Amino acid sequence: MKQVKKHPFILLFMVMMITANQLSFGQSDSVMLKKFFDEALVEGESYNNLRYLCKEIGPRLSGSENAEKAVQWTKNLMRTYKLDSVWLQPVMVPKWVRGAKESAKIISSSGKIEVNVTALGNSVGTGNKGVKGNIIEFSSIEDMKKRSDEVPGKIVFLNEPMDLSFFSTGKMYSQAGIIRFTGPQEAGKLGAIGVVVRSLSTSSDDFPHTGTTDYGEDTPKVPAIAISTNDADLLSQKISQDTNLEFYFRTNCEMQGEVPSYNVVGQINGGEFPDEYIVFGGHLDSWDLAEGAHDDGAGVIHSLEAMRLLKENYQPKRSIRVVMFMNEENGLAGGNEYARLAQINNEKHVAALESDSGGFLPLGFSINASEEVIEKIQSWTPLFKPYRLFVFEKGYGGADIGPLKDQNVSLLGLEPSDQRYFDMHHSAKDVFEIVNRRELELGCASMASMIYLIDKYGL
Amino acid sequence: MKQVKKHPFILLFMVMMITANQLSFGQSDSVMLKKFFDEALVEGESYNNLRYLCKEIGPRLSGSENAEKAVQWTKNLMRTYKLDSVWLQPVMVPKWVRGAKESAKIISSSGKIEVNVTALGNSVGTGNKGVKGNIIEFSSIEDMKKRSDEVPGKIVFLNEPMDLSFFSTGKMYSQAGIIRFTGPQEAGKLGAIGVVVRSLSTSSDDFPHTGTTDYGEDTPKVPAIAISTNDADLLSQKISQDTNLEFYFRTNCEMQGEVPSYNVVGQINGGEFPDEYIVFGGHLDSWDLAEGAHDDGAGVIHSLEAMRLLKENYQPKRSIRVVMFMNEENGLAGGNEYARLAQINNEKHVAALESDSGGFLPLGFSINASEEVIEKIQSWTPLFKPYRLFVFEKGYGGADIGPLKDQNVSLLGLEPSDQRYFDMHHSAKDVFEIVNRRELELGCASMASMIYLIDKYGL
Repeated sequence: MKQVKKHPFILLFMVMMITANQLSFGQSDSVMLKKFFDEALVEGESYNNLRYLCKEIGPRLSGSENAEKAVQWTKNLMRTYKLDSVWLQPVMVPKWVRGAKESAKIISSSGKIEVNVTALGNSVGTGNKGVKGNIIEFSSIEDMKKRSDEVPGKIVFLNEPMDLSFFSTGKMYSQAGIIRFTGPQEAGKLGAIGVVVRSLSTSSDDFPHTGTTDYGEDTPKVPAIAISTNDADLLSQKISQDTNLEFYFRTNCEMQGEVPSYNVVGQINGGEFPDEYIVFGGHLDSWDLAEGAHDDGAGVIHSLEAMRLLKENYQPKRSIRVVMFMNEENGLAGGNEYARLAQINNEKHVAALESDSGGFLPLGFSINASEEVIEKIQSWTPLFKPYRLFVFEKGYGGADIGPLKDQNVSLLGLEPSDQRYFDMHHSAKDVFEIVNRRELELGCASMASMIYLIDKYGL
Repeated sequence: MKQVKKHPFILLFMVMMITANQLSFGQSDSVMLKKFFDEALVEGESYNNLRYLCKEIGPRLSGSENAEKAVQWTKNLMRTYKLDSVWLQPVMVPKWVRGAKESAKIISSSGKIEVNVTALGNSVGTGNKGVKGNIIEFSSIEDMKKRSDEVPGKIVFLNEPMDLSFFSTGKMYSQAGIIRFTGPQEAGKLGAIGVVVRSLSTSSDDFPHTGTTDYGEDTPKVPAIAISTNDADLLSQKISQDTNLEFYFRTNCEMQGEVPSYNVVGQINGGEFPDEYIVFGGHLDSWDLAEGAHDDGAGVIHSLEAMRLLKENYQPKRSIRVVMFMNEENGLAGGNEYARLAQINNEKHVAALESDSGGFLPLGFSINASEEVIEKIQSWTPLFKPYRLFVFEKGYGGADIGPLKDQNVSLLGLEPSDQRYFDMHHSAKDVFEIVNRRELELGCASMASMIYLIDKYGL
């Protein structure tokens, strides 16, 4: 006791450590998490399931035949897990079709150079004739607005590279992404006849990266493409050498209205509080250029495997739901519909967790919730330490679960390392081969662990 | 004050936080680290240097012409950094040569099946005739010793898979690795005529993984190969179907004695304590099957780039040295020689830091030092938080710096995520293309940051 009086801080420190490590949760939690991780790593099904989704089904843009195949396949897979219920939630989705492969050329007095481009998602096509005209380069939308008098009748080239000094590539994307999100809209307002945006990519290569553009309301819809980073550099160089440079591109894409599709939902009923819901998932649709292995095949598989791990090892207090959301990429119809139905049906959602940042090494979770909830989740950190998940920070949840925020639901996003993500995001490089088996499996177990803790301790 | 008396723990906690975040290092440290990271990520030279090492030089086993090329190239590169001195440290290394490509067959009554194998490093060859005989499978060296009477005259197949339930693949490797390190030695003692070990790999594929085996002293040297994990499974299946199964393999490797080579050393002289040394590096030699991109091209490039970043941004108090060690893979001659000379020359080494765990996402540093030193290093953790380095734990330093431990030097190892490492380690898959640019660059800046802090605050 004497020693304690002399060094109260030692005692305090010990108490803090013991509290953090032992008292706030039992040893049984460590055992349960270890079960999830062991099972995912040693006899997990995630990798083979992702292989199937990527290789047997493939690209699955909303409204496509493949998207429908993915709906049926995930529904059937959920049924094999013997959940309490599995159902389809109908939702109307836009059907945007790329059509024949795009082409583009730099045209100068010395000849023509073909470059690698892809139409932006939801954009209008050029028709068979294509668009041809003088091309003018801007370093940003702001730059374009300052020199707006130079725009009319020209093809606008928005050449804003990602700022590589950001540690978070997600932040780079948010910043530079504006050229793709609203660049075509703004250029259309100023009288451009076409728009070329630099691909939102962290790598220098020949792959163009697609993604949605938003024309807004009552704006002239101008055909819009992304150009590979290598070709963006080439184009910029050519423009600097020839102010009368011309550019040509042809895209055959078109929006074909709305068609019916589905969210796929599976549920285990809660034993104690069946009317409280914890939902988690990823989005089943993907861009059409590749297999959507990381975006968001990984999130779909993380969620399915987490549900399987939970079903096999745990009886939840609350009703837990896994959802394969449809149409995140070019509309968010599935996420909106899920939230609408939750409200109509008066379903009290405790938390929603999304995995839509790839199948890379999981580092933790970002949390969009009250300080109190964030602190509660942070108190579980020691349980994740053996698996090197250290990031439990205020942040973003996910696009599909975003609409639930209005119902005051705590949102979480699985946070894998994002260093590699924008090398391949929305490009033809997003294929099964670049997903690492163990990293994927660790993500599945991380998801199961978080759902388990939220269910057991509430938020 | 009243409040403080009532809640002494709050005060204490605040003091602890302030100490951790502010007092133990100035804001200038954050600025310096940001410089290292920004420069590495935005205008770093590491990725192109690694490309050169892998693509223009290539595999560089000790004693090979390529190893000599790598010595000259890194020496010249260091000279461009305008360090205070750059020199070669002569060291004799073993020259082991693989010779013509290996071949192997499973021979059963129903026919022959070719399988993918590679000779273990430092192993003896079979000669042109090869080795043929009945093959017997064991699940471990222990299993083999228990059934030692069955070994004489046979080819031993040590088929111990990595235990995938470990979170750390390094730990898996340490455990299963024994079949490669000493399996052939033990089998030779028991009268085996050849040894086949299951590749130490976390993936299921057709690539055999080489690596050194140690015959020990006065043991019959038995030809030894690694077989791909897929073919190990196949072989095991065939053995279970046919107890008289035969196996044939031919290897043409041989040890050709010792030849001269070098460690490459670059130094910036300390401004305040020039007689104190901080050394960091990686190993320049690699296995011959691939480009040694992760093992240890990444460590070499991490270290070179860290030295460049330090030279351009900081004048060290102590003398800092970057070393490209020679012969880590099959002898450790370079590491031993460096430590021997440090002792002879009475050079007081404060710390040694090695990067030899690949160019993957850096998570922190493992530390082989006193508790006091570990705590000091841990007090710098907040500086690394923006870059998501969280691991600062007691652990392993590195093979090349290991011999310095006798001189009471604190050893550190850069710790990247190891989840992907043993998919490709020592196999033909270890090529430039599987190194991610940003992950490599983050490793370089992490190394520079740690050397900077050790130099500035001592250990």
